[in-house]
Amino acid sequence: MGEVYEKVIEIASRRGFFWPSFEIYGGLGGFYTYGNLGTRLKRNIEDLWREIFVRRHGFHEIEDPIINPSRVFEASGHIQHFREYVLECTRCGRVSRADHLIEEELGIPAQSIDGSEIERLVREGGIRCPDCDGELKDPATFLTMFQTSIGARGEDVGYARPEAAQGMFLNFRRCLQQARGALPLGLAQVGKVLRNEIAPRRGLLRLREFTIMEVELFFDPQNPSCPWFEKVRDKEVAILTEEMQGRGERNPVRMTLGEAASKGLIRTEWQAYFMGLSEEFIEMLGIPGGRQRFRGHLPEERAHYSAQTFDHEVYLESWGWVEVAGHAYRTDYDLSAHQRHSGVDMTVMRGDGTRFTPHVVEPSFGLDRLVYAALEASLRIREGRNILALPPSIAPIKVSVFPLVAKDGLPEVAREVQRRLLDSQLASEYDERGSIGRRYARSDEAGTPLAVTVDYQTLKDGTVTIRDRDSWRQVRQRIEDLPTLIKRYLRGEIAFSELGPSAGDVEGRDLSC
Amino acid sequence: MGEVYEKVIEIASRRGFFWPSFEIYGGLGGFYTYGNLGTRLKRNIEDLWREIFVRRHGFHEIEDPIINPSRVFEASGHIQHFREYVLECTRCGRVSRADHLIEEELGIPAQSIDGSEIERLVREGGIRCPDCDGELKDPATFLTMFQTSIGARGEDVGYARPEAAQGMFLNFRRCLQQARGALPLGLAQVGKVLRNEIAPRRGLLRLREFTIMEVELFFDPQNPSCPWFEKVRDKEVAILTEEMQGRGERNPVRMTLGEAASKGLIRTEWQAYFMGLSEEFIEMLGIPGGRQRFRGHLPEERAHYSAQTFDHEVYLESWGWVEVAGHAYRTDYDLSAHQRHSGVDMTVMRGDGTRFTPHVVEPSFGLDRLVYAALEASLRIREGRNILALPPSIAPIKVSVFPLVAKDGLPEVAREVQRRLLDSQLASEYDERGSIGRRYARSDEAGTPLAVTVDYQTLKDGTVTIRDRDSWRQVRQRIEDLPTLIKRYLRGEIAFSELGPSAGDVEGRDLSC
Repeated sequence: MGEVYEKVIEIASRRGFFWPSFEIYGGLGGFYTYGNLGTRLKRNIEDLWREIFVRRHGFHEIEDPIINPSRVFEASGHIQHFREYVLECTRCGRVSRADHLIEEELGIPAQSIDGSEIERLVREGGIRCPDCDGELKDPATFLTMFQTSIGARGEDVGYARPEAAQGMFLNFRRCLQQARGALPLGLAQVGKVLRNEIAPRRGLLRLREFTIMEVELFFDPQNPSCPWFEKVRDKEVAILTEEMQGRGERNPVRMTLGEAASKGLIRTEWQAYFMGLSEEFIEMLGIPGGRQRFRGHLPEERAHYSAQTFDHEVYLESWGWVEVAGHAYRTDYDLSAHQRHSGVDMTVMRGDGTRFTPHVVEPSFGLDRLVYAALEASLRIREGRNILALPPSIAPIKVSVFPLVAKDGLPEVAREVQRRLLDSQLASEYDERGSIGRRYARSDEAGTPLAVTVDYQTLKDGTVTIRDRDSWRQVRQRIEDLPTLIKRYLRGEIAFSELGPSAGDVEGRDLSC
Repeated sequence: MGEVYEKVIEIASRRGFFWPSFEIYGGLGGFYTYGNLGTRLKRNIEDLWREIFVRRHGFHEIEDPIINPSRVFEASGHIQHFREYVLECTRCGRVSRADHLIEEELGIPAQSIDGSEIERLVREGGIRCPDCDGELKDPATFLTMFQTSIGARGEDVGYARPEAAQGMFLNFRRCLQQARGALPLGLAQVGKVLRNEIAPRRGLLRLREFTIMEVELFFDPQNPSCPWFEKVRDKEVAILTEEMQGRGERNPVRMTLGEAASKGLIRTEWQAYFMGLSEEFIEMLGIPGGRQRFRGHLPEERAHYSAQTFDHEVYLESWGWVEVAGHAYRTDYDLSAHQRHSGVDMTVMRGDGTRFTPHVVEPSFGLDRLVYAALEASLRIREGRNILALPPSIAPIKVSVFPLVAKDGLPEVAREVQRRLLDSQLASEYDERGSIGRRYARSDEAGTPLAVTVDYQTLKDGTVTIRDRDSWRQVRQRIEDLPTLIKRYLRGEIAFSELGPSAGDVEGRDLSC
């Protein structure tokens, strides 16, 4: 933790990536606000995800309500299972998460232990209230969904959804019909979910309101093969299986996804495929494969609906291994549960006339965590200056546009250049305040890959300088060629040096004013 | 109402635009689900709005939580004012909205009347419970926000926001700082809002959970001019002012925005500017200016924060005039209220050292209503077939790709064509089922502007036919030129006939199978 986290948080709130919500009223744990840069970064990551997980496969994206009536979550099992053990102080009334308190007080992992084990540990460990040292009540469970009532008479109890997945199960039949009955069917959703976390913490990593990106892939368990699997079969990933963890292994093994699938370590081809895509996607956010791993959930750790779950974790300097996605094999759990509770038939007919309940594999991503992880992974310090070396595809602003000085007609030309870039759908910002060196520094800290400067030579020959955020090198190019060339650079089709002839390195000489 | 509405709703739910949520559990009023086509259409409208209202001006977009602690809405006045009068039955307990019930029973407009007037009308009109004919209690007010409690001890009362605007006021100081102190400052937000409507109805028009797109424009009341106003000054719009309504006028007057602003009918230039943009934007959704008007709110009709409000209304065959946007002059109401309640200084310093509280103009759009309005306005019936003549820029799918027949290698080529279009970021769908005529019909009903067909000639010369959704005409073009040409067509740069030499009109001959 410590230094890196503090630095990211400081840059984020000062520059407008994100900051704690409701600041003027003293804040409220677990709620964050995205600013101009953060909103763009978040949307860029979402769009990239949609391209990779949804669009390429022709999956159908849906949008289902956040508030659901209680019968949805009774059927899904959330009312029963989406709970945490809490310990309440008999004296001051403070409520603590049992697992956190035990971990802090006794230093042992306590994520998956049950009520009687908690009771024993509290008693034997002599754990008392961390605030007032009062005695603790017996462990109780707390439903971590936000509850509300719907209608003028409060006739329906509603909950804010803690995951987006139920929307895909509730609407499965209608969506299958719209897709004209064909399985496999991928249904995707990106949207807000809410969890009444007892102990929100670590900024964007544990929020009460956050954005989730999910695919539910419905397939026939008798025909479980994934047509895209060949694309990832030879990809090598780091896996820490259930069984390895059971043996006390702490280091993952590297193996290909094909091997993991054929050995049954990953139980379905679809899940192995999505794990491969997931690794590629996270790499595109600037986190290399060497800092990623898949950790299998132990049986007692798995959600109530899952037959197999892998957490996709990334290594962050601040917090160590952090889960950014979950890959769950939900089998027919949810469709069967809704069929039971609603009386609506959820089965599908095969060509041979037999009926079956589709099985489901789910890759699920926490978008806010990805925003944080991408930001932290991008942080570089060079000559005492902060640089966010974000991949160009997700950088909030693609090009800064500066007049060398704010006089002699340079601002007018620079504004014209910016308009031209905006018209070409290139997110750009104009800045004329302070020295050019300071402006480069500001641009680097916003993660902007390129800075275009209009100088006196521009007035003579219509060329500008283009500066690279990461190398601080500069090239010169004609204004009219900027949009096309810059787009090709951002897509990774050409290198920076191909943007134009070198204009020398003029960095660092003008940071004084 | 009636026929058109039923038709739109039928197409929407069958084809996957939208349908009532929680169907398998009998539904829940005021909640709708978007499917594959609807999610795309909705996002396309959102993106167009963002381009026109946010990006062009360099405004800052933010994302603030949906759940807010109660003190936010105490300060904003919502806890006090965001209420409806209700009438509860003493016998069966049914709760009705007072204004709806009076309108239905007595046929008089009752939107803005107060409790004592309601009491009088109920008594004199002999209004009783519409369900059981029981006697009604005295009118009471009902807070139409969803309430919840936050934290394990329920220590904070929270509400789901009924508008996105408070996010911009709460974060104004920080955003102003990030924008380096410059006014005018535009802050935008697109997001979910929730209202516990007593009587949700008319599908997407009155939802309990919906998406709002808002700009709060902060300016110095001593410097109220809008730098973009020239762009709309000569634009003529239809306005029904407060004063005209006071005189009983029912027909709006057409005048330029310049005239309306200089006469003081629209009190600020910024508001007049946004009203002009608003009309342009709605036109781009396929609703011509002649079906739009701006209706000024009467004082008793205005929200508690507003000094002047114009509803932007569009004429729908189904429902008559329907509000799709609101343009409110919120003055310094909100910033002053939050300053009072939080103790945080919300003033800004002028160059001369004097301080002031910025004034705010707000254009606010209901995205779900726009989706419905655009769909209804696009509906055409031709030879008994439904066509959604959506503007290409917002159509969910841009190009359908068909093999003429599903054999002889045509499907393989067609899939390759589709891949090429997808790679060029052109939303496209492949379909090989049923006759080509049926597939054209399906494509038209999905609002897809173009259909590309791979036929036997394709195998010889690499050309395909391109068919126009609206005229059913066809041209031929080489596969490799499709992406560039189609993009130009979708942007409105070239006409359909410029997509290639005519290939004749082959419509209607093959609808049999």
